Amino acid sequence: MEKQILSALVENKSGVLAHVAGLFSARGFNIDSLAVGETEDPRFSRMTIVACGDEAVLEQVRKQLDKLVSVVKVQDLSRASRVERDLLLVRVNAPPGKRSQVIELANTFRAKVVDVGLSEVMIEVVGTEDKVQALLDLLRPYGIVEMARTGRIALMRSSRG
Amino acid sequence: MEKQILSALVENKSGVLAHVAGLFSARGFNIDSLAVGETEDPRFSRMTIVACGDEAVLEQVRKQLDKLVSVVKVQDLSRASRVERDLLLVRVNAPPGKRSQVIELANTFRAKVVDVGLSEVMIEVVGTEDKVQALLDLLRPYGIVEMARTGRIALMRSSRG
Repeated sequence: MEKQILSALVENKSGVLAHVAGLFSARGFNIDSLAVGETEDPRFSRMTIVACGDEAVLEQVRKQLDKLVSVVKVQDLSRASRVERDLLLVRVNAPPGKRSQVIELANTFRAKVVDVGLSEVMIEVVGTEDKVQALLDLLRPYGIVEMARTGRIALMRSSRG
Repeated sequence: MEKQILSALVENKSGVLAHVAGLFSARGFNIDSLAVGETEDPRFSRMTIVACGDEAVLEQVRKQLDKLVSVVKVQDLSRASRVERDLLLVRVNAPPGKRSQVIELANTFRAKVVDVGLSEVMIEVVGTEDKVQALLDLLRPYGIVEMARTGRIALMRSSRG
């Protein structure tokens, strides 16, 4: 099953997130990632939802979302020409003898070292899900201490014609 | 009222997000931003929740979260020594005569131009909420076409002692 990506413009008020999340769980859909943040208009938030599941069932969920009063607009970006980005903060085990290896890996991915401790470094990386995953796979052997990931956000590309 | 930031390690299964969001809305708490993404362990996701509200009431919500079976651990990062990051994708109105001004602004903030259209550019910026907001304020006069923002993620800093 392919990952589906929905972008929803919703009213910025209490209860909307619970409502949207409830629609997914009622169908037994697990959300892989969800990011909800401010938009230019303080009345609205934008949610980006990545869910793995049957396309026909997800289309039903999309239609139900579209019917909610608190949902202004839903776009299915799964097949659209889009730019998508994922952000990861990760603390990696890196005692002094390994530190330069870890920092070199981060540099190769144009990731940033944002904190250094006695035996750990914290790295920030932004990019497509594949890029973030690739760096993570290379850091894993050193030992991941803790991580936080936003999940994907996405926007359609601008017209060039 | 200050912004509070909670980080919760939760079970990665259907219904957990709806449950957590429901706890907030039951108290009339509006969530400013929420990001939920994968962790190193596929059984768990990490949620970062930013909410604005009374500290005592938020502490009650935190305790209730902690009692949920599907919630493994909740940290209040509001007063912790932490690194936090926010990610924004934004499409800005930028016809050829304005394009270089917009690109220059992006460069100043070490933001990246990730797409260029006939009359628009798309910019990716990552940083603290203040940094992201500052760039957004400078881009606004050109005209924001569309934006998606992850909201904050955060991790505690490593020990240096």
